[in-house]
Amino acid sequence: MNLIHLSLITLLLGKNVRDLSTNGNSTNILWHECPIQKHDRQKILQQKGCVIWITGLSGSGKSTIACALSRSLHSRGKLTYILDGDNIRHGLNRDLSFRAEDRSENIRRIGEVAKLLADAGVICITSLISPYQKDRDACRALLPKEDFIEVFLDVPLAVCEARDPKGLYKLARAGMIKGFTGIDDPYEPPCSCEIVLQQIKGSECMSPNNAAEKVISYLEKNGYLRA
Amino acid sequence: MNLIHLSLITLLLGKNVRDLSTNGNSTNILWHECPIQKHDRQKILQQKGCVIWITGLSGSGKSTIACALSRSLHSRGKLTYILDGDNIRHGLNRDLSFRAEDRSENIRRIGEVAKLLADAGVICITSLISPYQKDRDACRALLPKEDFIEVFLDVPLAVCEARDPKGLYKLARAGMIKGFTGIDDPYEPPCSCEIVLQQIKGSECMSPNNAAEKVISYLEKNGYLRA
Repeated sequence: MNLIHLSLITLLLGKNVRDLSTNGNSTNILWHECPIQKHDRQKILQQKGCVIWITGLSGSGKSTIACALSRSLHSRGKLTYILDGDNIRHGLNRDLSFRAEDRSENIRRIGEVAKLLADAGVICITSLISPYQKDRDACRALLPKEDFIEVFLDVPLAVCEARDPKGLYKLARAGMIKGFTGIDDPYEPPCSCEIVLQQIKGSECMSPNNAAEKVISYLEKNGYLRA
Repeated sequence: MNLIHLSLITLLLGKNVRDLSTNGNSTNILWHECPIQKHDRQKILQQKGCVIWITGLSGSGKSTIACALSRSLHSRGKLTYILDGDNIRHGLNRDLSFRAEDRSENIRRIGEVAKLLADAGVICITSLISPYQKDRDACRALLPKEDFIEVFLDVPLAVCEARDPKGLYKLARAGMIKGFTGIDDPYEPPCSCEIVLQQIKGSECMSPNNAAEKVISYLEKNGYLRA
């Protein structure tokens, strides 16, 4: 809505216009505030809504750890929900390809949905490669500072490739998948994140349950497991 | 992924390939199943996740009733979350305009998010005009049959236009908003929906609380307010 347009409308209506806003391509939209807010929902749930953003290479164990975390929190009576990059591509993001701009849009939308779930009071766990710092930072910026908990699954490429649970590294090496993270597209490790999970320490492997417990300790220490 | 491509991959890997699927533009995606499912979350919440889809003209009172419903359910200890068409255009759908195809995409995405919230166990209340039957039906089709509860706010255009809470009818009549539902774009009333709320009966006005109670009776009767 440009200024002349706005003036005309103001003359016409003399009210309400200041409340209408333009966001991106959306014009004439009004923000509706509801009396039941996040903290009310948190009281019912006895927890704080937040986003646990798990990032790491394909095959690093993101989904496995997301499940272990969900199971362990559930056993404590906490409400969690997993947004898995692959699963969301079956629904909300089924229109998106793996081209650079679509991968970015994929992450943006998941960030927005994670924000809604956290606002609903849910402990939302996301599980997607999200290789670029700028995309992760954009999702972080959607939430109150402390409610975005970035978890870096720090597993060496060689280990992920040896596991290759979906056979995707093999396809990428054969040139049948282009732009595959770690092979012909970069993974940018987080500069500063809340939690680093190193699945391999020397020759020892950190179990999914141990990894989950590390995240839960963080949540407990920071007050997320109470209202 | 075409057949020849698939055969090559099968030769190369000899495994996993059947589990990879193509959805829309998304290829090589695997569905991850997690041990914590909807019914587990519902046990924690002592309710059933569902979508209450409120449809009606601009100014028919969708947001007001969504809020009254949320307040009343909250007072019974139930977890609700409102997806308001306008609010979502500030975030997830900020890239969408009001052109026909974008309005349709707006509704599709909100339907997908509502589905995720219902799967999380939340009673999700949507509040958007959603004027076309086919868009509403597409959202209904995303959910188990009984979990999509369509609520038609049946308020005559003349009443909505007289209220004109955002001044949008005035703008539409002045030709400053094109394709405005009820003015120069059709509203298709639901053919068959679960609940009809007639806000005006003769000269009497149904209060938002009465409207909310009517929806809550439906939820109670159909078992949504217990696990």
